[in-house]
Amino acid sequence: MRRAVCLLSGGLDSATTLAIARDEGYTVHALSFRYGQKAEREVEAAENICRVYKEVVHKILAIDLSQIGGSALTDNIPIPLNESPSGKIPVTYVPARNTIFLSLALGYAEVIEAQDIFIGVNALDYSGYPDCRPDYIEAFEKMANLATRSAVQGRRFRIHTPLMSLNKAQIIRRGLSLGVDFALTVSCYQPTANGKACGRCESCRIRLRGFADAGVPDPIEYDCESGILSE
Amino acid sequence: MRRAVCLLSGGLDSATTLAIARDEGYTVHALSFRYGQKAEREVEAAENICRVYKEVVHKILAIDLSQIGGSALTDNIPIPLNESPSGKIPVTYVPARNTIFLSLALGYAEVIEAQDIFIGVNALDYSGYPDCRPDYIEAFEKMANLATRSAVQGRRFRIHTPLMSLNKAQIIRRGLSLGVDFALTVSCYQPTANGKACGRCESCRIRLRGFADAGVPDPIEYDCESGILSE
Repeated sequence: MRRAVCLLSGGLDSATTLAIARDEGYTVHALSFRYGQKAEREVEAAENICRVYKEVVHKILAIDLSQIGGSALTDNIPIPLNESPSGKIPVTYVPARNTIFLSLALGYAEVIEAQDIFIGVNALDYSGYPDCRPDYIEAFEKMANLATRSAVQGRRFRIHTPLMSLNKAQIIRRGLSLGVDFALTVSCYQPTANGKACGRCESCRIRLRGFADAGVPDPIEYDCESGILSE
Repeated sequence: MRRAVCLLSGGLDSATTLAIARDEGYTVHALSFRYGQKAEREVEAAENICRVYKEVVHKILAIDLSQIGGSALTDNIPIPLNESPSGKIPVTYVPARNTIFLSLALGYAEVIEAQDIFIGVNALDYSGYPDCRPDYIEAFEKMANLATRSAVQGRRFRIHTPLMSLNKAQIIRRGLSLGVDFALTVSCYQPTANGKACGRCESCRIRLRGFADAGVPDPIEYDCESGILSE
């Protein structure tokens, strides 16, 4: 069986991406990061998601991006709540995050002799982060194939983005069709102390709208359900 | 003054690169890594190099690449000694290292609003690592300019490689002309307990040949000077 590395944040997109990689026949090595995120619960979520599949290898790397800073997800900058999309890249953008994560995935893939890397980026229902777009992924793949001993020796890397052109409702339906248990996933940027999603940050709002559009209930608990989708 | 991020391993190439960036008028933010390397003394060397220049900001990031493994520099794999170049990429290759380091430099540059990143890679007197070649650097720069909020907003990044086409003797002369104190630098992959260079690993051998070709003495101490250049 071919091995693949799958970036797994613990959110619904990456959980679905992992299920797709398995469905395509890969032995999946899931890769998660403790990067100094406020929502460290998402790493537990990633562990729970992996536990469902006994053949999935789960690796958690520590790389504290608060050493660099510049993001509401890692720094002492408030996470915006109840905001409508402005068309601007929000303060939750983490400088070069996907590039850093994909670079580490590339190194890991090279070591375990995998040539396939899955990432659950999506350029439809997303926050406008530049490192989620197809031309970025294409440029990363090209760079990866010049960067590595494997590629020089003819084993080329491919970055798979199976969710790129799906909307959130389509991702949810795809995940459900593959048996993903969305109750295990964490999307919230800042879960409450009792482990509930805030329901108000942009990530919660995109998720809730996705479940509403898909016509299925979101199985996770929210801290404040009133007014969530009433903009 | 424009800011630049300069990757600083503590070796002679990166020390020279830092001096070049300063000479070009940049305020330099040097970036070093504790990445689980056996030669952790090189991080001390980087600190000593920065101490010479009072306006240089030095940042040391921790990212333990032994979590990924696959290299003689981080793992329990012997570092080859007294070997002649084989034309193959040696076991000291660290999977995706420059990609990981440049990605972190990119995030850091974005946060401090620098658009210029200096790296002392060299494709002449080097170990054949793929992530030191000009087409790799060009591909990284292209990817970086799709990856980041800064680039989307029109502040493009440039990766500077002032040593790319110099041989080791030329790098040494360039460094000396800029006042670099090579006594502060550490090139050895595995310094001895008393802090001396081994003189036998590939990095020592390339360095020693460079000083011999430049016709100047290498100011650092070696553990075993006999036979070093007698292949």
